[in-house]
Amino acid sequence: MSFQPPQRILMGPGPSDVHPRILSALARPTVGHLDPSFIQLMDEIKALLQFCFQTTNELTLPVSAPGSAGMETCFVNLIEPEDTIIVCQNGVFGGRMKENVIRCSATAVMVEDDWGHAIDMSKVKTAIANNPHAKALAFVHAETSTGVQSDAAALCTLAKEAGMLSIVDTVTGLAGINVDVDGWGADAVYSGTQKCLSCTPGISPVTFSPRAVEVIQQRKTPVQSWFFDLNLVMAYWGKGTKRAYHHTAPVNALYALHESLLIVKEEGLEASWERHMHNHLALRAGLAAIGLNLPVNEADRLPQLNLVAIPDGIDDAKLRSQLLTDFDLEIGAGLGVLAGKVWRIGLMGFSSKPENVRHCLTALEHCLIAQGMSIESGTAVGAAEAAYTS
Amino acid sequence: MSFQPPQRILMGPGPSDVHPRILSALARPTVGHLDPSFIQLMDEIKALLQFCFQTTNELTLPVSAPGSAGMETCFVNLIEPEDTIIVCQNGVFGGRMKENVIRCSATAVMVEDDWGHAIDMSKVKTAIANNPHAKALAFVHAETSTGVQSDAAALCTLAKEAGMLSIVDTVTGLAGINVDVDGWGADAVYSGTQKCLSCTPGISPVTFSPRAVEVIQQRKTPVQSWFFDLNLVMAYWGKGTKRAYHHTAPVNALYALHESLLIVKEEGLEASWERHMHNHLALRAGLAAIGLNLPVNEADRLPQLNLVAIPDGIDDAKLRSQLLTDFDLEIGAGLGVLAGKVWRIGLMGFSSKPENVRHCLTALEHCLIAQGMSIESGTAVGAAEAAYTS
Repeated sequence: MSFQPPQRILMGPGPSDVHPRILSALARPTVGHLDPSFIQLMDEIKALLQFCFQTTNELTLPVSAPGSAGMETCFVNLIEPEDTIIVCQNGVFGGRMKENVIRCSATAVMVEDDWGHAIDMSKVKTAIANNPHAKALAFVHAETSTGVQSDAAALCTLAKEAGMLSIVDTVTGLAGINVDVDGWGADAVYSGTQKCLSCTPGISPVTFSPRAVEVIQQRKTPVQSWFFDLNLVMAYWGKGTKRAYHHTAPVNALYALHESLLIVKEEGLEASWERHMHNHLALRAGLAAIGLNLPVNEADRLPQLNLVAIPDGIDDAKLRSQLLTDFDLEIGAGLGVLAGKVWRIGLMGFSSKPENVRHCLTALEHCLIAQGMSIESGTAVGAAEAAYTS
Repeated sequence: MSFQPPQRILMGPGPSDVHPRILSALARPTVGHLDPSFIQLMDEIKALLQFCFQTTNELTLPVSAPGSAGMETCFVNLIEPEDTIIVCQNGVFGGRMKENVIRCSATAVMVEDDWGHAIDMSKVKTAIANNPHAKALAFVHAETSTGVQSDAAALCTLAKEAGMLSIVDTVTGLAGINVDVDGWGADAVYSGTQKCLSCTPGISPVTFSPRAVEVIQQRKTPVQSWFFDLNLVMAYWGKGTKRAYHHTAPVNALYALHESLLIVKEEGLEASWERHMHNHLALRAGLAAIGLNLPVNEADRLPQLNLVAIPDGIDDAKLRSQLLTDFDLEIGAGLGVLAGKVWRIGLMGFSSKPENVRHCLTALEHCLIAQGMSIESGTAVGAAEAAYTS
């Protein structure tokens, strides 16, 4: 029988609610991956990605697979066996970076911070001083597992001053907060479609600086992945009307990405960041009013992904299950060391809107009361409304 | 501006025409990749893939990226450095297999046949005799670059008798001709969605025998790709209701795959193969009537992908461009050594229907006459109709 999915409200760590314009774009008739109309679409996608990443990098394209594949694209193209890479870890995705380094037969020098905290610059400086020949500094700008942002501009500058490349994960950052690839001087940056771009999951936008391109072109060993080898992918995503077939592009998924990038451009980057902040502040006010705690330092919080401490005595799984069953609302569970201790409430892209803030606060309040918490109904929404009108 | 693709008729080597039911499934509301309704969908997709592959293999799943990623999934999981793999090449994709072997730091022993010919069993036997310690025999069942099928049953048997694993590319085969994974005793098989499944491009179904799973579990070195590491992917695509997050699944693309597999099941595998053969015979009759030659031996032809020799004096690029402009019809160009010498006419999945055969023959005839060939209008379609009614 055909699958008829429930109509959820997606306020987890992604996918976020997909804009109806994007779903409609997805269903348009498929054309060939070498069709002249599609080549033109590819050029538009590239230009729109450059806009979102705030870069003039020529090597800017969507990898034909989800964010983790974007990560792997960065690592396997830049790293060769025996290289040393400094990797900052303050959540799940720094750990995944380490895995990528190891699988490239290279050495990962780890700089660790507690989960839920931003990356500590002084530790990074020490690691750079102790490993002056490291090839790159890799870090997560927007940690999806903890809702923490780190200072990408400062970290890229440290890398550059040490003559190292920077590799930046901003899967959850793009279009939600300032991602300023050229301003930072970042060398390899990857993101995802299913977060603040409000697109369906499955594609990973990436961008590489001219310096990174040079490193890729001058490799001594072949890239260990054929599928992710940018030397080959560029023959398809390069310039002009002649494109060499590498792999069959996910045609309809790219219709969707194009539409999602158009929506961001129509709104404007700054307006999008402001909207994310605005809804975050209202959510925060509502949560505070019912005594829920946001454990991340205020200065380090991602407005689009809110880490919330689960109050003592509350059954995590039961609460999230009730949210889904009674309110069609998905919020995220904690990952790794934070499992069972926190929720992750996403306000990303099309999900970042007052209706969702109200719905989430009402539903959460309802379920907390059902588990015995003493809250007067309407407290959370009332506080959010006050924040919106203040 | 939103992209409004032209409405093409896709008769190249893939993507093929996408069934409207599949486009409609694509646009359904996105749910989370850990939503209970989605976990149930994943189980259904797995069972439907087992049906299409004719296998009971537990490790049967859709890789979250196109066919080339399915290929890489097979190679990087089964191969370790220093292994020797016997690779048959009779077209583009055997060459891609070789690239995969090399990038795994293993040795590829090549068995080469001319492009457009099936794999020669005697050469394979010799290669096996000369390399008794090779770990696997890799070959292409349905060569998308030449429209040739090779004897998968016999090749898998040769591998098995020599104690080697078999790795089989059937990207263009699945649902178009008999793909009998368990009957063949194949160990690792990959396909694509955008061929005879009539789905959008972007996903690669794969299946692994219990023997292959054992090899993967007993590896001495980690899989060089984190994204394609089946030890990790299985925690998400495994059994039960608890699924560990590995990467965010391409949710809507999997709605589409599910719908496409349902359509295959509703029609029935044998009926689908017969339909592909039926339309192939009509196309062949039409092409023969206007003097076009199918260079592949009759016994080795893929009914779903027809290699056609470009007649002397015909301008390839000009003709394909006119087909696209005047008839909205895409056929495939030749690849590699066959570039400029052949066309590839696909009759795959939803594209394999009498309307398309008639449209293609009419359009082709028109464009050949425009380039000065002496053909009486209607000859090709007339011959096809005669084939349909005989």
